[in-house]
Amino acid sequence: MLKVKLICVGGIKEKFFEQAANEYIKRLGRFCKVEVVEIEERQKSLKPSQAEILKTLEQEAIETQNKRDGFTAVLDKAGKQFDSGEFAELIKQLSNNNSVITFVIGGSHGLSEAAKNTADLMISLGKGTYPHHLFRVMLLEQIYRAFMINARSDYHK
Amino acid sequence: MLKVKLICVGGIKEKFFEQAANEYIKRLGRFCKVEVVEIEERQKSLKPSQAEILKTLEQEAIETQNKRDGFTAVLDKAGKQFDSGEFAELIKQLSNNNSVITFVIGGSHGLSEAAKNTADLMISLGKGTYPHHLFRVMLLEQIYRAFMINARSDYHK
Repeated sequence: MLKVKLICVGGIKEKFFEQAANEYIKRLGRFCKVEVVEIEERQKSLKPSQAEILKTLEQEAIETQNKRDGFTAVLDKAGKQFDSGEFAELIKQLSNNNSVITFVIGGSHGLSEAAKNTADLMISLGKGTYPHHLFRVMLLEQIYRAFMINARSDYHK
Repeated sequence: MLKVKLICVGGIKEKFFEQAANEYIKRLGRFCKVEVVEIEERQKSLKPSQAEILKTLEQEAIETQNKRDGFTAVLDKAGKQFDSGEFAELIKQLSNNNSVITFVIGGSHGLSEAAKNTADLMISLGKGTYPHHLFRVMLLEQIYRAFMINARSDYHK
């Protein structure tokens, strides 16, 4: 069975976002095995120069978690935007050619340049910035929607 | 005090999304009075031709709710995307010139052409489609973030 792996910098604080994420992970069980790996966010408030160092430390943790036995996409505002039909097509292609699809979500300082450069694809969910726990729910919903579109469900109209 | 009005087609089913929306409404209380008006979604599964009729019916209900005593923005994928800094600037301008800012979120069939044409602005949160209850949480978070940016809080980095 296909594995979808989410590597997230930072955990979920709010219970309602945790429940929302778990709901989509449960629903995705029909289509894939979801694994969520949370990497500790180093520090939330710091100077830009420190932020760069921390992003590098977080990147090392991401690399350790990411065995690169499949396709790796990072989420970044500057990435490519997909409408839900295009995203479903992408998921279909990737599912056919990989046993693992990994999505990497950065922490509150974003991802390091290394994380962006070594990824197979950079995906954007729009120009806005969101808290990473809400962002995780948004991404899970988009992945679920993609599978439902590919399953020809009427979830997506 | 500024009023921010959300006119939404369809209610929130999932308790966790309701809690998330309520959390942002509570936090927004520092900056504005939030009013949420839910318009009944007519029917979820129907043919495209029927969908057009229902969107018109929903639009009539939206018009009844929207007194047009301020600025009205509709949310639509084809609208203008703002990054969070630009959105904060927009909210600041609108707050200075209006006592009410209204956001209209369509139901699962989207908004009628009339709703789009009569709005002052069409805003997009990205190319993806989301369930409208999750979308409501995303919009509330973006509005909260905008106020926090304008208040020079470090919520947004």
